[in-house]
Formats: sequence, C-alpha cells, structure tokens
Amino acid sequence: MGQELLYEGKAKKIFSTADSNVLLMEFKDSLTAFNAQKKGQFAGKGALNCKISTLIFKLLNKNAIANHWLKTEDENHMTVQKTKIIPLEVVVRNVLAGSLAKKLGRTDGEVLKQPIVEFYYKDDALNDPFVNDDHAVAMGWATEGQLDLMKLEALKINQILITLFSAARLKLVDFKIEFGVNSAGQLILSDEISPDCMRLWDMDTNKKMDKDRFRQDLGAVDEAYQEVFERISKGAAL
Amino acid sequence: MGQELLYEGKAKKIFSTADSNVLLMEFKDSLTAFNAQKKGQFAGKGALNCKISTLIFKLLNKNAIANHWLKTEDENHMTVQKTKIIPLEVVVRNVLAGSLAKKLGRTDGEVLKQPIVEFYYKDDALNDPFVNDDHAVAMGWATEGQLDLMKLEALKINQILITLFSAARLKLVDFKIEFGVNSAGQLILSDEISPDCMRLWDMDTNKKMDKDRFRQDLGAVDEAYQEVFERISKGAAL
Repeated sequence: MGQELLYEGKAKKIFSTADSNVLLMEFKDSLTAFNAQKKGQFAGKGALNCKISTLIFKLLNKNAIANHWLKTEDENHMTVQKTKIIPLEVVVRNVLAGSLAKKLGRTDGEVLKQPIVEFYYKDDALNDPFVNDDHAVAMGWATEGQLDLMKLEALKINQILITLFSAARLKLVDFKIEFGVNSAGQLILSDEISPDCMRLWDMDTNKKMDKDRFRQDLGAVDEAYQEVFERISKGAAL
Repeated sequence: MGQELLYEGKAKKIFSTADSNVLLMEFKDSLTAFNAQKKGQFAGKGALNCKISTLIFKLLNKNAIANHWLKTEDENHMTVQKTKIIPLEVVVRNVLAGSLAKKLGRTDGEVLKQPIVEFYYKDDALNDPFVNDDHAVAMGWATEGQLDLMKLEALKINQILITLFSAARLKLVDFKIEFGVNSAGQLILSDEISPDCMRLWDMDTNKKMDKDRFRQDLGAVDEAYQEVFERISKGAAL
C-alpha cells in the first residue's frame, strides 16, 4: 500500500500512502551504531522490532498515551499518522550507562534516585549534541510547552514500560523516543520503540538484551531481540 | 587579615579569617584556559579583576541581588560571606560563541532570540561537563528549587550587566557565575565577576575585550582588561 519512498533512515523506510495524513513505516533488517560508523543486519530484525513496537504502541494506547500508530499491516510494516517531527531525541534514564556514565565519571549500572530526561538535537553531522530546554527554545526546535509535555509524556511512558519489562524480568536501563505534531496540531509519540532504541538488561544476570550486543560485539543479537519479544508477549496483558 | 590558606584555585586564593562566616578572597595575576592546560599571567590582572568585581558586586547590591561580597580590603583582596558552593557553573549566553557555537554548528556572533542559561558540573577531571536540571537533582548537586532560583537570578544579573556594559559600548556575549549557600541557608551569588569569566566585545568593532585574548593569543590582554575597567567605571552610576 506504500506509494512514494519519502525517507530512508538507518533502520526504517517511510512511504506515502493514498491518505495524505497517513504514512507507511517499514522496519529494515539493518542495524547501525556510533552515528552509522558501524553497520550490520540480521534477518528478521525488522519484523521483530515491528512486533515489539506494535505490542508497545497497543499498550500505550490502553494507557492513553497519544501516539502515531494506526495499524500493523504485515510483519514489518505499520501505518502511522503523519507528523512533523520535533528534531529532538528524548532520552529517559533509570540506570546510569553508556555515554552519560562516562561523562559523569560513574560506572554502568548505578541506579538513579529518580529518572533523568534528556534532549539531544537530531543532527548526524553534529553527532546529535546534548542540549537543554533553553537551547531548544532559542533555536526554534520546540516551544517551552512542547518541551514540558514531552518530558511529562516521557516519564509516563517510562512508568508503563517499566511495568511491562519488569513483568518480563527485564530492567529498563534507558530508552530514546521521538515526538511529532500531527495534522490536528497534537504533539504525539512518533517513531518506534524497540531494543534498537533502549537498554534492557536481564534482571537476574544483567545480560544485555538490546542493541549494545551489536555495539559491543557481544554476539547473539538476534536471539536477544527474539527473547525480548517472547518474554514481553507473555507478560503483557493485551 | 587572612589566616589559613583554605584553597588555591587557578585565579584565586581563599583564606580563613577571625570570623568563621567570613573568608578573604585574593585575586591572583595568573590566567589559565582549556582546563588549565594553558597558563599565563600579567602583572596587575588580580587587581583589575578585583576592581571590576567590586564595581559589579556594588551594582548588584543596589539591584537587590544577594551576593557574597562584604568589603574590598585592598587592591586584590575582598572579604566575602563563607558559602557552600553549589558545584555548578551557571553560564548565561546572549550571543552564540565558543563551545556552544561549535557544538550547534553555528558561527560566532549570532544573536540569540532570548538568553540561554546552562549548567556545567564543576569537575576538572571530567572537563566540567554540560548537564541539565535532571542530572543535577539526581546526582544531588542541587535541588529543583535551587536550580530555578539560580536561573532566575542569572537572568536578572544578565539584565543588570547588559545595562552596565552597553553604557560602556561593550556587548555582553556570555558569562559564567557560581552560587553558594551561606550560613543562614540563603542561596547567594559567589565567586567573582570579571573578564576572566565572560566574553565582552567592543560594540562597534567586535574587538574581544576578555580572556579570549589570552585563549586565542590575540595579545594585549592587560590593556583590554584595563580598558574594560575604565569604560565601566565611567558608565556605572555608582
């Protein structure tokens, strides 16, 4: 049902559809890391991320979190509301890991007293720099109201995801989401939510079950993604 | 009147005094940049910064900005209230320059639609990383209330300084301040305010009149500091 290819990203393709307010999103099998300096893929990755994202979007719908998902069309395609993306990656952290742990001189795994929300300006050429609210407003990327709403929604989504993953014995370390404004002017959750955009550790062994397996050459990336899907499908009361 | 040397920094020494709530601050002639990788000095720099800081603290007092300054004792010493320093550098920017311009891929000199306030965690070993409110609260560096108050005070100070420097035909590009909590539990402006901690450009020629002359080897650092003092002494209605 997709018509024109509008955009091809690192892990997704976006097509127009007959309805100008609806886009078709294709989940690709490719994996990239370090601003696409490292590239890989595995068969079925697109389908797994599509299934995991679908499960999560359905759960968010149940919890009244406005998002762009409309329908999952087949194993690696979903239709979504067309939005104008806010050029900020919104990161929520429950446990210190990765770039932030390094920047603050702390060790991976330190549990935060309260979740941290961060904004990163989406610009590959600038390496997606970390910014604050004032930067976003002064540069015209978002209004203060939009920033506050994104933070609020991000923290609500965090609580919903923690509940989902905890039931699957998975620790939600951090995740990245994006927001867009739809044709009605509503700010809604966009993009995908999958192990490509989060850190998930097995609650008992701390085994990494996300894209860090690819980033850090830990192997068995496909099995980890598959296991995440299986565990949350059992746990999720859909 | 100083007793024990409590602390020696890049540009200042702090001594105890007979009053446990009062410290003696000595302005040194040394200049450092790039996290002290570059070092220099010029005779009279400490005295100039002490005079400029004194003038500014007096002006802030007139404008009801709570600060640590008590009395300027001689050409390079002032007594100040003892405070427990919040470990955040508070940066206010009116014009894009330096590290932020580079990070955002913009050119030096772009006037911002509105001032930007930033927090940097004071830690030389980590190169004073840029952080946001959530980091500061989660790490226990400051409370939300303190962060809000620091931003508010920083923006008020910005307006006062813009008025001061504009009258002296100087453009206040950006500046760094610090806050501390005194023995009464009040959050007050601490540290110094001098061309060491700000970017000042001549309004007509854009000539740099601050520590960037030292950072960038532009020469005549001493003359620039002297001229800043002379210009604002004439302009300031003290």
